[in-house]
Amino acid sequence: MDKIRFAPRLSVEEVEEGCVLAPKFGPDGLIPCITTDADSSEVLMLGWMTAEALRLTLETGEAHYFSRARQTLWRKGATSGLVQQVVEARIDDDQDAIWLRVAVAGSGASCHVGYRSCFYRAIPTGSAAGALLVFMEDQKSFDPVATYGDAANPTQL
Amino acid sequence: MDKIRFAPRLSVEEVEEGCVLAPKFGPDGLIPCITTDADSSEVLMLGWMTAEALRLTLETGEAHYFSRARQTLWRKGATSGLVQQVVEARIDDDQDAIWLRVAVAGSGASCHVGYRSCFYRAIPTGSAAGALLVFMEDQKSFDPVATYGDAANPTQL
Repeated sequence: MDKIRFAPRLSVEEVEEGCVLAPKFGPDGLIPCITTDADSSEVLMLGWMTAEALRLTLETGEAHYFSRARQTLWRKGATSGLVQQVVEARIDDDQDAIWLRVAVAGSGASCHVGYRSCFYRAIPTGSAAGALLVFMEDQKSFDPVATYGDAANPTQL
Repeated sequence: MDKIRFAPRLSVEEVEEGCVLAPKFGPDGLIPCITTDADSSEVLMLGWMTAEALRLTLETGEAHYFSRARQTLWRKGATSGLVQQVVEARIDDDQDAIWLRVAVAGSGASCHVGYRSCFYRAIPTGSAAGALLVFMEDQKSFDPVATYGDAANPTQL
């Protein structure tokens, strides 16, 4: 039995100022999800959710996403063990984006490349704009080859 | 003269492990951008950028987005004065998402509804899943009517 119901979006006022969950999914059926570490506040990843992934996340308290590369529902940590326990979920003003604050199991990493955060590189700005990207994590938190074996890399060109 | 050049995406290894900026824009020409408060680490908003908006953000050090509602380039704070000064910019593993850490001018708010963060409502999870949204900010930081007058509300149903 589903505990979660997504309400219809009937008015801007209700969507912005109301207390009813009425998420908007894009033409591809997806809503973006910002995931941060509940302890450090670091942004770990930007994921995508179908209605099913959002419902499972809210009901189970564990982050579920939709893998655009594999075109399938994805319980985060199913392969790696790096499960994301939801500490708090939020939705934005027009209800077309989710923010999850999570506690990550194991090494605490969330990036398939092996880093803690997917955002492990800084882009120089201002007078330094145009310079090379700068790595912000000294080393990987886990070995992706040992963890994922020969599974296809989700990064698409 | 543009200081920023976006490199072609030639290999997964270079995109993930390299130091060259090679962002991926979606079929709509947009890349999502997570914007957090550099001081509090709070997530303020999820915005969208065209190549031009990203280039201007990196070169000027002030956040620029693309307004999907108005279908136009948007220097954040142009109307409200709530300019976002970029403290740090990052890009994710497959270079299809941006993270900006910013210092917000004036009241420090970033949400057109008047709140500090666009994510001013929590969604109950787990055993409380299905309950009403909970407001996480006691009051608005500014009066959107006084600030925006009769400009069209960007929220779309």
